[in-house]
Amino acid sequence: MTGHIELAPIGVVRGGRTEIFEDHWGPVQARLLLDPAVLDPDATAGLSEFSHIEVVFHFHLETRVRRGASHPRGNPAWPQAGVLAGHSPVRPNHLGVSRCELLAVSGLQLTVRGLDAIDGTPILDIKPYATGFQPAGPVREPDWIRELMREYY
Amino acid sequence: MTGHIELAPIGVVRGGRTEIFEDHWGPVQARLLLDPAVLDPDATAGLSEFSHIEVVFHFHLETRVRRGASHPRGNPAWPQAGVLAGHSPVRPNHLGVSRCELLAVSGLQLTVRGLDAIDGTPILDIKPYATGFQPAGPVREPDWIRELMREYY
Repeated sequence: MTGHIELAPIGVVRGGRTEIFEDHWGPVQARLLLDPAVLDPDATAGLSEFSHIEVVFHFHLETRVRRGASHPRGNPAWPQAGVLAGHSPVRPNHLGVSRCELLAVSGLQLTVRGLDAIDGTPILDIKPYATGFQPAGPVREPDWIRELMREYY
Repeated sequence: MTGHIELAPIGVVRGGRTEIFEDHWGPVQARLLLDPAVLDPDATAGLSEFSHIEVVFHFHLETRVRRGASHPRGNPAWPQAGVLAGHSPVRPNHLGVSRCELLAVSGLQLTVRGLDAIDGTPILDIKPYATGFQPAGPVREPDWIRELMREYY
């Protein structure tokens, strides 16, 4: 449909979990080490004024691709959901987008809590979490994802 | 730091704005045409139960890269912010992540409102907007970004 896009990581996740667990990411702390070959030292200027950031990362250990629908987490009690109606890493492009708490900023090293990405994960982008950039009106979502997210953080 | 990552678009934005405007994206409607070579017809199953989606896209017309800090929108009344403390397209990897209203789902064609991406924008991923995947605690952000976002949607 359109051409391929080549991206270079801007940094890497260090610390936190070394294996993928589905739930209880909330207390997990990690460092985000940003690459001085890609970013200047003031790339994070002002970032500490934000309590949260949004991180775009690569599910680098995942090689499977789902193109259709399945039961979320293989749970038959939940209805089938298309790959674009869920957050599974098993998807085209293996991109993750998550919010987390920003605990500390020291030049090109960030300390975060609650990022659901394991040690070694390549970081593709970081953006500040801004309330004005979120849905303004009421949000509707199905029951299954409320249940699924209950123990996630 | 880690190797390059090659991504293939899963679809394209059609309609909406044909040129970049900074503000008043809220009423803009567009279609997201997903590629049947990448996704099965049921890739969007259950998606219509969500009022909003999150779209990862490529700022395909942007070639400039900012690696340090600058005044947001060149406004000297706002403090300098590092590239990772703002949402400008002028950044490494030229990735955009935005939320929008999901108005209709018809197989691999979505109709959305309030997506800040122009006609022809390559789509890299779509995820459902889930409240449980957002920050749970209070959010802190600087005054300048509240001002900047005031007219954005």
